Amino acid sequence: MSPADPPGNKPPQETRFERQVPEGDDHARLVCRDCGFIHYENPKIVVGSVVAWDERILLCRRAIEPRKGFWTLPAGFLELNETAAAGAEREAWEEARARLEIDQLLAVYSIPRISQIQLIFRARLTTPEVAPGPETLELDLFEWDAIPWDHLAFPSVHWALSDYRAVRGQTAFAPRSNPPGEDGGLSHP
Amino acid sequence: MSPADPPGNKPPQETRFERQVPEGDDHARLVCRDCGFIHYENPKIVVGSVVAWDERILLCRRAIEPRKGFWTLPAGFLELNETAAAGAEREAWEEARARLEIDQLLAVYSIPRISQIQLIFRARLTTPEVAPGPETLELDLFEWDAIPWDHLAFPSVHWALSDYRAVRGQTAFAPRSNPPGEDGGLSHP
Repeated sequence: MSPADPPGNKPPQETRFERQVPEGDDHARLVCRDCGFIHYENPKIVVGSVVAWDERILLCRRAIEPRKGFWTLPAGFLELNETAAAGAEREAWEEARARLEIDQLLAVYSIPRISQIQLIFRARLTTPEVAPGPETLELDLFEWDAIPWDHLAFPSVHWALSDYRAVRGQTAFAPRSNPPGEDGGLSHP
Repeated sequence: MSPADPPGNKPPQETRFERQVPEGDDHARLVCRDCGFIHYENPKIVVGSVVAWDERILLCRRAIEPRKGFWTLPAGFLELNETAAAGAEREAWEEARARLEIDQLLAVYSIPRISQIQLIFRARLTTPEVAPGPETLELDLFEWDAIPWDHLAFPSVHWALSDYRAVRGQTAFAPRSNPPGEDGGLSHP
């Protein structure tokens, strides 16, 4: 996935933007003092997958911040003009040179603190040939008991793996959501 | 929901922004010629619901463009720092003064042409007391056969109603997605 992608790349005070309520609007927006350009800020969509080959699960060790060196699912920000499933397939290719057969939507997580919605699919590899992409230090297919639970990158990686286990063998299920009371804190796969 | 919300409120040539590939990036972004502010463009999330009271379904006639005068579901853009379910509840309140009990995720639609992901829930009214909000001309609870099929605002309203019907009586189902071969064209609830 891409590096952290805040609404702007500099703090507003270092740019010509200031918060104003534009005419006819009911929310404060970042408006350029010079040209009036309005920088709308919107929640972001992360797409990813729990990917299996037989009983083993694909995890990637992050080569980039945040959480460099920790293990994560292939996941990242949806790009413009992309469907959710195509985005999940692209991320699996970019991070793990993996080709997926997507089964169904496993979970929708809301991380309101960082204005993020995560759409996580359940998928299978079409072939076990995988290799690290540029944002991945190494990767592996893990048996359940060998998953590096203490070195997972984000809470939502834990959630997705647990949810994957919880629906094992089910062919039609409602997608899972955040565990009760959890808002994802650090989560940013 | 809010009016159309393009990446910027003016065409780029009327602002100080131009498309450049920032250092370390692999996509062209809108960058301010003066201060270097990067305007990241991301897909947008629409949240909404098919809302029922007994067998009747809540529809709202739009008081705003696009598709003013046509019938739609209560739906709109997710705001910052909002969960998906909270956003759907807020939209139902804003557009129809409706209080919801959300059942489960009915559908995830991808509209890549306009870079939109729609999360549509199945929900019930907690009380039949509803009233038009400022973006709604009128509203009603429709029996299935009385739905104004020829005056629905967007393709995805059709899809959601059809999908609602298709899973009637089912308590656990995989969320529906776009009908095969349909990318939503006009869709923008």
